[in-house]
Amino acid sequence: MKNLIKLILIPILIVSCETTTPYDQETADVITRFYGDALGERESYNLLRDLSKDIGQRLSGSEGAAKAVLWSKEIMEGYGFDSVFLQEVMVPHWERGTYEECFYYEGGKKINLSILGAGGTVSTPFEGVTAEVVEVKSLEEVDVLGREGVEGKIVFYSKAFNQRYINIGTSYGETGFQRRLGAIKAAEYGAVASIFRSLSSSNDDYPHTGSMSYKEGVDSIAHGGLGVLSSIKLSEKIKADPKTKLTVRLSGKWFPDALSHNVIGEIKGSENPDNIILVGGHLDSWDVSEGAHDDGAGCVHSIGALRLFQKQGIKPKNTLRAVMFMNEENGLRGGTQYAENAIKNNEKHIVAIESDASAYIPRGFGFSGSDEQLEKIQDWLKYFDKNTISYFSKGGGGADIGPLHRRTGTPMFGLSIDGQKYFEIHHTAKDVFEAVHPREMELGTASMASLVYLIDKYGL
Amino acid sequence: MKNLIKLILIPILIVSCETTTPYDQETADVITRFYGDALGERESYNLLRDLSKDIGQRLSGSEGAAKAVLWSKEIMEGYGFDSVFLQEVMVPHWERGTYEECFYYEGGKKINLSILGAGGTVSTPFEGVTAEVVEVKSLEEVDVLGREGVEGKIVFYSKAFNQRYINIGTSYGETGFQRRLGAIKAAEYGAVASIFRSLSSSNDDYPHTGSMSYKEGVDSIAHGGLGVLSSIKLSEKIKADPKTKLTVRLSGKWFPDALSHNVIGEIKGSENPDNIILVGGHLDSWDVSEGAHDDGAGCVHSIGALRLFQKQGIKPKNTLRAVMFMNEENGLRGGTQYAENAIKNNEKHIVAIESDASAYIPRGFGFSGSDEQLEKIQDWLKYFDKNTISYFSKGGGGADIGPLHRRTGTPMFGLSIDGQKYFEIHHTAKDVFEAVHPREMELGTASMASLVYLIDKYGL
Repeated sequence: MKNLIKLILIPILIVSCETTTPYDQETADVITRFYGDALGERESYNLLRDLSKDIGQRLSGSEGAAKAVLWSKEIMEGYGFDSVFLQEVMVPHWERGTYEECFYYEGGKKINLSILGAGGTVSTPFEGVTAEVVEVKSLEEVDVLGREGVEGKIVFYSKAFNQRYINIGTSYGETGFQRRLGAIKAAEYGAVASIFRSLSSSNDDYPHTGSMSYKEGVDSIAHGGLGVLSSIKLSEKIKADPKTKLTVRLSGKWFPDALSHNVIGEIKGSENPDNIILVGGHLDSWDVSEGAHDDGAGCVHSIGALRLFQKQGIKPKNTLRAVMFMNEENGLRGGTQYAENAIKNNEKHIVAIESDASAYIPRGFGFSGSDEQLEKIQDWLKYFDKNTISYFSKGGGGADIGPLHRRTGTPMFGLSIDGQKYFEIHHTAKDVFEAVHPREMELGTASMASLVYLIDKYGL
Repeated sequence: MKNLIKLILIPILIVSCETTTPYDQETADVITRFYGDALGERESYNLLRDLSKDIGQRLSGSEGAAKAVLWSKEIMEGYGFDSVFLQEVMVPHWERGTYEECFYYEGGKKINLSILGAGGTVSTPFEGVTAEVVEVKSLEEVDVLGREGVEGKIVFYSKAFNQRYINIGTSYGETGFQRRLGAIKAAEYGAVASIFRSLSSSNDDYPHTGSMSYKEGVDSIAHGGLGVLSSIKLSEKIKADPKTKLTVRLSGKWFPDALSHNVIGEIKGSENPDNIILVGGHLDSWDVSEGAHDDGAGCVHSIGALRLFQKQGIKPKNTLRAVMFMNEENGLRGGTQYAENAIKNNEKHIVAIESDASAYIPRGFGFSGSDEQLEKIQDWLKYFDKNTISYFSKGGGGADIGPLHRRTGTPMFGLSIDGQKYFEIHHTAKDVFEAVHPREMELGTASMASLVYLIDKYGL
């Protein structure tokens, strides 16, 4: 019986330990060429230069966004993708106004602080609002202060990034309430304006913007972010003189929703043209930057991934679709509309993959799908250099593909990228092409192409 | 029997699939604090600022090197390490001279090329050598040209980095012969000087230096590296006019070997004080840079690792030893002497860990030891955030700990760091403190401390 057990054990052990497939040299060679072509030719990087420098800012509803839509369409048409088309999306349309200022006086001298209105802020009067400042580090503190402590004042949310986290994005999560919900909470107790320390890990004075909310039934007050150094300076000033009067001048205007578009390019599948593998990023950016990392990179990662298939003359079995989503930053209308259309048109998506975590160096992929699928794909790590994609982890995807995932159950991946420096440039004027490294960015393109190839060849 | 097989199968399967140990929450907490303290307090980064800015260049035998020895000793004494001492090492002593120039004339106009003598070059006459240039891409091409094609000429090695590799260090390996062996090969056929395209992945004009060799019985000729853009310009010029006369002026001087030191600091082991866990980097740098990445980072990673133990009040079981090796760049005398002394003094090293791959973001550890050890330590990955240390791979270590490893069999680790940008600054004037990111660097310090802790606690 001992021998019998051994005989049974051996195959079971092999099967149970790993769901391995034989090493496929053709796959390895294709992937090596994906990386080589991306790094050697830098085509995505050159696209990113054009998008960043020739078009630049492209907030939803702006002229830049409209230009970016046409640019993406023309690029993919120029590459000879099998099908390139626009998908209509109505987007919110807010524009920053002409004045933005924050200052106090010290010994008769005007001390200027660096400020940027949150995306969506209403305007103060032209002369600004001038009032005492009350500094808090949480929404709860505003509740505790109540109307007595807040009415007629400017609320200053000064919660700083915690640098102790390995994943500095955790700090972004912890401080995000200041920008997103700060104006509502302050206005509930009668504040005349609200400001916040930029959600930034840097130690400079570039203020940061991003989406914010108002609430029906609560006054809309102007809301803006201070640069980190300006925040520190203001905290010190208030500590020295709690009666400090601050002036905040912010301007922004809401327009009716505007017509814009998701841009879609396809390489048709040779065996199952109705099965779609989606790769995407978002085309819109904040108005103060070139949106090079956020998310020009994701767009050119996606176009570039399809382009790498073309370069090798690989005919995918399933249809590859690159999607430039519109309006991730302040509405997610593009992602929502895309899911709506996909359901209406009975489209079958095998998987959706998003890159919206910058152009820095890739580390892995997050995955939201079944545990069985997650276990299966671990075996694919053998085709990746460990210094590019070193893991497939549970959870993750992307904001734009989230609606499709939630409404249709389509499994989704998100490209995980080293985030150590991201929150120094995120949503600031520093998010420009020069902050992108060609090799780091191209590793993202090749990683996207490689994952698409593996899914197309072996299924999920 | 079926049931019996099942009973036997279950434990065997568990044991066979992974050599797992129970998750040790204390270990996890300690490691979390290592990372938190490093990122939050940035003490290693501040040390690196002092080493880079107050001392700067520290080529073996220089005043800078001597200052760095004292600095390291004082820092570790200041931290109250249990024992801090110097280990004498005789090092080669070469100094760059006063003139360095490379030019040709075009239409009567002097065209300057950016050049840097290789470390160890002899001088040309003050007025330089002026001769026709012969361009090659390999040592073999020089052999083919022979004396007829080379005598009296300047040999120009112009092999470029291949950008297609994911690990750009591969290109450094492929082009290294130009700097290391180029002068010997050229002189064998009577060349009057030799120059080479810098071993660089960048597209700028900062020339690169590094060690080179001469050979007994072969003339020593001056040998220097051109900036990448200068190399490209010279290639074009030669193509247009093969009779182009180039002038090379280089200067450098050899002095007698100098007395220098490895610097060693220890925290004594509470249980096995005679067992040593070594962490180290090299203190010397090239003369044209601050040696911030190469290898100031490795030094402060190592001191910092011990410091992180101190901060938590952790008493290691084994003795932790931080070693700042001298003379990695042009002789490896420090590493060689260290091994010699270790053998002479019957020291018992459990393991040696080196950081000499820059201050960029860590990716994993390379390991040279037994396969059983490598399998065992895979289990430790569960204590690392996947965006810091994501692998333990076979092979690797460090130049300085190599002699100890080879002569005593001590297992060795090398900290693997993302190398995408390293060969843009390596051995150039761009290797300065400003090129180091605090969070990336501190993740290295904490990774070193964590590995030391795991080895100290669980053994190898």
